[in-house]
Amino acid sequence: MPHIKVNEDLPGIRALLAFSPSTAAPIGELADLLLRSNEGLSMAERELIATYVSYLNDCFYCHHSHGEIAVCYLDGDRATVDQVRNDYTQANIPAKLKALLNIAGHAQKGGKYVTAEDVAFAKSEGATDKDIHDTVLITALFCMFNRYVDGLAANTPKDLSTYPARAKQIAEKGYGSHVYTQPAPVAV
Amino acid sequence: MPHIKVNEDLPGIRALLAFSPSTAAPIGELADLLLRSNEGLSMAERELIATYVSYLNDCFYCHHSHGEIAVCYLDGDRATVDQVRNDYTQANIPAKLKALLNIAGHAQKGGKYVTAEDVAFAKSEGATDKDIHDTVLITALFCMFNRYVDGLAANTPKDLSTYPARAKQIAEKGYGSHVYTQPAPVAV
Repeated sequence: MPHIKVNEDLPGIRALLAFSPSTAAPIGELADLLLRSNEGLSMAERELIATYVSYLNDCFYCHHSHGEIAVCYLDGDRATVDQVRNDYTQANIPAKLKALLNIAGHAQKGGKYVTAEDVAFAKSEGATDKDIHDTVLITALFCMFNRYVDGLAANTPKDLSTYPARAKQIAEKGYGSHVYTQPAPVAV
Repeated sequence: MPHIKVNEDLPGIRALLAFSPSTAAPIGELADLLLRSNEGLSMAERELIATYVSYLNDCFYCHHSHGEIAVCYLDGDRATVDQVRNDYTQANIPAKLKALLNIAGHAQKGGKYVTAEDVAFAKSEGATDKDIHDTVLITALFCMFNRYVDGLAANTPKDLSTYPARAKQIAEKGYGSHVYTQPAPVAV
């Protein structure tokens, strides 16, 4: 049961965004800017970072939600998304992304866990300053989202068959808070 | 040395916001909404939560920056701000704020560390749903800011005499990203 009185028909962070529409607006804008861009990192790569960080933070709602969005962008390749969660070093993803996931895993613990060696290695694999900036900020953003969701005990659908329809909605319409003013889509 | 090439004349998060002005805009808006409000929690109380979380995350730049802003709002009462860092249970602050700092300390570790008992206790001390929401989201926001700053190794002024002038600027003008387009104020 959520720690505060929210609309229990809305799953996960959607109920919190509806509780506080004023803060929902910049939160949605920030998510759109960081996750819905192909500049440097692709949208799929950005969602994989989000999924991995949320998995490390043990946020069931977030890692399944963003994992499904990554599956959308990867044309249904769920095996790669699962492999990133379980051991990204063995996943079929670019070496640059592996080096950035290493940075993400360290930043998830705390900012000071990111070392100059981590960054030098990512640069040697082709990461730009913008790639490194975006990786750290996406990681930090999900350390925020994961705490927001679980810190208020938002309702988390346990039935994984409900996640793809919401993921498709985000993949098509983005994270703008207008998405959350509509009923959450049900399983298709 | 910062992990990416930023304007080294700008301290802490300011250099990162200048590196990425597009994301700086919603970040500033979110900070203004959560920290520059007296609805329920006062601006001083919000900055005390930010200071405490940043201290737990060992983010020197953030806990000194927001500690100084709290000092501004508390008319120079630095002893209370220091006591909140060191042991808030003994600080001269309302019982409701102590119960909310307990929630903040748990959410800083991870969302699931916040228990129903923590929340029930805060409510028994007079906390509303909005107070609890704002406490968790401020905590989550600073778990983001602290990782952003230290994860990119942003320059951190070690000279504490440089913090009050920047704090005064924020206290007067807010967190809007327009503040960061101006040179950072120097010590007064």
